[in-house]
Amino acid sequence: MAKPDTFSPALLGVALESDTAKPAYQQLYEQLRDLILSGRLASGARLPSTRSFSKELGLSRTTLITAYDQLASEGYLEARRGAGIFVAQFSPEHLMLVNSAAAPAPPKPAPPQGRPARSIPFSIRATSPADFPHAEWARLLQKTWRGPIASHFGEPHVEGDANLKAAIADHLRTWRGISCTPDQVLITSGSGESIDLITRVLCAPGDQVWLENPGYVPMRRKIVEKGLAPVYVPVDREGLMVARGVELAKSARMAIATPPRQFPLGMTMSLARRLDFLDWARRAGAWIVEDDYDSEFRYEGRPLAALMSMDETDRVLYLGSFSKVMFKSLRLGYLVVPPGLATRFHQVHDEAGPQASSVAQPALAEFITSGQFAAHIRRMRRLYARRRGFLLDQLVETCNGLLTPQPANSGMHIVVSLDEALRARHCDAEICARLREGGVEAQSLSGFYADGTEAGEGLLLGFSGFEEAELEAAVGAMAGMLGELAPEPRALSQAAPGSPRSRG
Amino acid sequence: MAKPDTFSPALLGVALESDTAKPAYQQLYEQLRDLILSGRLASGARLPSTRSFSKELGLSRTTLITAYDQLASEGYLEARRGAGIFVAQFSPEHLMLVNSAAAPAPPKPAPPQGRPARSIPFSIRATSPADFPHAEWARLLQKTWRGPIASHFGEPHVEGDANLKAAIADHLRTWRGISCTPDQVLITSGSGESIDLITRVLCAPGDQVWLENPGYVPMRRKIVEKGLAPVYVPVDREGLMVARGVELAKSARMAIATPPRQFPLGMTMSLARRLDFLDWARRAGAWIVEDDYDSEFRYEGRPLAALMSMDETDRVLYLGSFSKVMFKSLRLGYLVVPPGLATRFHQVHDEAGPQASSVAQPALAEFITSGQFAAHIRRMRRLYARRRGFLLDQLVETCNGLLTPQPANSGMHIVVSLDEALRARHCDAEICARLREGGVEAQSLSGFYADGTEAGEGLLLGFSGFEEAELEAAVGAMAGMLGELAPEPRALSQAAPGSPRSRG
Repeated sequence: MAKPDTFSPALLGVALESDTAKPAYQQLYEQLRDLILSGRLASGARLPSTRSFSKELGLSRTTLITAYDQLASEGYLEARRGAGIFVAQFSPEHLMLVNSAAAPAPPKPAPPQGRPARSIPFSIRATSPADFPHAEWARLLQKTWRGPIASHFGEPHVEGDANLKAAIADHLRTWRGISCTPDQVLITSGSGESIDLITRVLCAPGDQVWLENPGYVPMRRKIVEKGLAPVYVPVDREGLMVARGVELAKSARMAIATPPRQFPLGMTMSLARRLDFLDWARRAGAWIVEDDYDSEFRYEGRPLAALMSMDETDRVLYLGSFSKVMFKSLRLGYLVVPPGLATRFHQVHDEAGPQASSVAQPALAEFITSGQFAAHIRRMRRLYARRRGFLLDQLVETCNGLLTPQPANSGMHIVVSLDEALRARHCDAEICARLREGGVEAQSLSGFYADGTEAGEGLLLGFSGFEEAELEAAVGAMAGMLGELAPEPRALSQAAPGSPRSRG
Repeated sequence: MAKPDTFSPALLGVALESDTAKPAYQQLYEQLRDLILSGRLASGARLPSTRSFSKELGLSRTTLITAYDQLASEGYLEARRGAGIFVAQFSPEHLMLVNSAAAPAPPKPAPPQGRPARSIPFSIRATSPADFPHAEWARLLQKTWRGPIASHFGEPHVEGDANLKAAIADHLRTWRGISCTPDQVLITSGSGESIDLITRVLCAPGDQVWLENPGYVPMRRKIVEKGLAPVYVPVDREGLMVARGVELAKSARMAIATPPRQFPLGMTMSLARRLDFLDWARRAGAWIVEDDYDSEFRYEGRPLAALMSMDETDRVLYLGSFSKVMFKSLRLGYLVVPPGLATRFHQVHDEAGPQASSVAQPALAEFITSGQFAAHIRRMRRLYARRRGFLLDQLVETCNGLLTPQPANSGMHIVVSLDEALRARHCDAEICARLREGGVEAQSLSGFYADGTEAGEGLLLGFSGFEEAELEAAVGAMAGMLGELAPEPRALSQAAPGSPRSRG
């Protein structure tokens, strides 16, 4: 091997800045690394001894040793016993490709973020930050984190806080008429994980699954992603048309539906229809997944009993969520399974790795058992009822008959149908696009129908997350834009939502 | 229609209990519902007026009205104007199938839970609850929840707290040499969600993906689930054998690896190998996913720079996790993408629906920026270094040469190879099964190899989550069991881990 050259740090431009928070050894490490990676400090070059180098730069020897150690441990330098420290061997083409990123590159401009952090009317499913009981929630988080508790550090990660499971079972008994033990409850990070588990345990690829049409789009996407075959079953005023589902796919493996409040149209499944639905499941040996996403917000009467509460044959699984009552980004939901399936679900959950964060689970358990959860629901129900009434009044007063609210007594949004004068000129998606340009958010009903099926038209207007002044301003802006879109408002006939219009 | 019968509540056995917390209207509702669903109260039957019924039962009329309203709103009863209230029409076969579950069924026995809530030695990746700074974390949770903040109620749900993204970018610059802007950071619920996003954006079904062998089993499962084609690339003392990967699948779309510390064997990828790896990615137009799951816990020298910090061609994505430094059930991780991919990743993340809970994000951001995170890492590093040293000493003293620790200077577990005397009689999985029966948890190294590949044998022993006394007791118990499994300990030759043994 050729006699290695030593090099002079000064010659190579090594110089430390004193007006930086970065420690000297770090600066030295980064500069030497850059020199090596750029090829200016060649493979095989001998480094000055720490003693002479430290003198030359006016640094402590410890600084030099720390930097050399780091470089050696990362493979840039090699110590040869008795001979000194050398730059390690690299092939030259390597050195062209890489470079140190330790010296921060100038920050790039931020890419545009697609969506605002704050909802604008009429976003659906928005919650009301100002009305959340922050102080109490903060107190519970602190209280439950004062000392180690099993569910935070449970390792292997257990699939949910025991107190939370018990609190959910109690809540379901009182509010939804469901009688279940805590062992039937699985805590998940939301309906996505719940559906993952359900399909893992109960379905095989290619199985047919009834889905409501219109319905929740991410659910549809999920079922397709899982390799299952969706069967789109229409809904009418009584909810999912069970007889139609039987015609389309009598032997489906599963049906996913929203009996307490159809999403997005808002009707409650009638008792007769529920009985038909359970009857089909029993005869077909099929499973029903009851997706109960917001039935807490019912403005007349008490919440309706869940379908699961009427099921004696253990064919119903129940999906619940805290997104609506608490806040969406809590990312906690639950799944209730029939007693005979509990052990299998826990096993599969454990194998797959539970996804729900433990951070808020003990606090949420105490929030529920102390009665604050129920109190919060009642408060929000009153608030949302007022906002809903206000929005309905505003629509009637301001929109000149162009929009007709459809009956529903629950939920966080209303569905309005479009007047002939509008429908003749524009589809609902075009209208939403125009409104969005004008700063008003509305969702087109047709967007909730599966591709290739006959789609009803209308708008979904969320009210839950907005104060009356915001709603009033948004209705005014919307009325102006709709007036331009339908220059001769006649309000002759008002089509009901669900009136079909074909979409590709 | 036939003249409806009225019925006498007393005759049907309606009777309210007074020694229960359940409100009277609820009891009445449930009993009437049961009567209807069981068919004892027939379709078309007329109910007594609220006035006469309340007299007969000695209840307030409000109670009656509330119960009737609930039953009517659920479709069990119908009011006919001027005629009274009637049981709704059902077909008789329905009534055989369903029953009220509102009266709680006797609780079923709890199904056996598969795993203990508390880890036992030598579970790998266990954290140390007693050493977590609970008081400070509790204080930050409370502080960040005192009032509404955007990232908790952001709706549409934004994909991560802005302060947390900035804190992560800073942390990566200091600790890992990665220069990135907060916009390159995506907050996820862990590596599962991160891989979902990566494969959605960068891969198509059937794409080849290099995976380390041995490697992290859930990652392998995930890649298969995504419809991708895993290519198992062996590792040697320098980490992933890039040349072998090129032989197996030169044009693979992606490689997922653990350069900072190979999982599970623990070696750091050498500099030469890193340069080869980056070179391959550049030539092949492939992506490298650097899974940096626990490099904070390095016991000699500072943490090594990340592969991403050496990448000038923007082919590396970086997976980080808070599971090891904080606690596993936090369920927060992050993904750093090259600048040119940031906008696309944010779009896809937004469409897919971010999975990370917002609850702890602001607190975690402050935990990092205040320096407590780094202090906690340093504290844990010292603690784990002590525990590791203790375990190594114990193994040498107690295990009579049957186990030989393999060199590694980082991580939360050590790998030990098995003496000939053991290997001749039992495979590593059998040894682990025996240890588990005796209350000692160990993982077999062969379990981390892909099926159908040559597997090395050995044991993984986690030390991070256990106090010295626990480790000592577990080593003692293990030594006893190993002595029984290898009745004539000779300690002649010690096979290195990675010595192949074929597995189906």
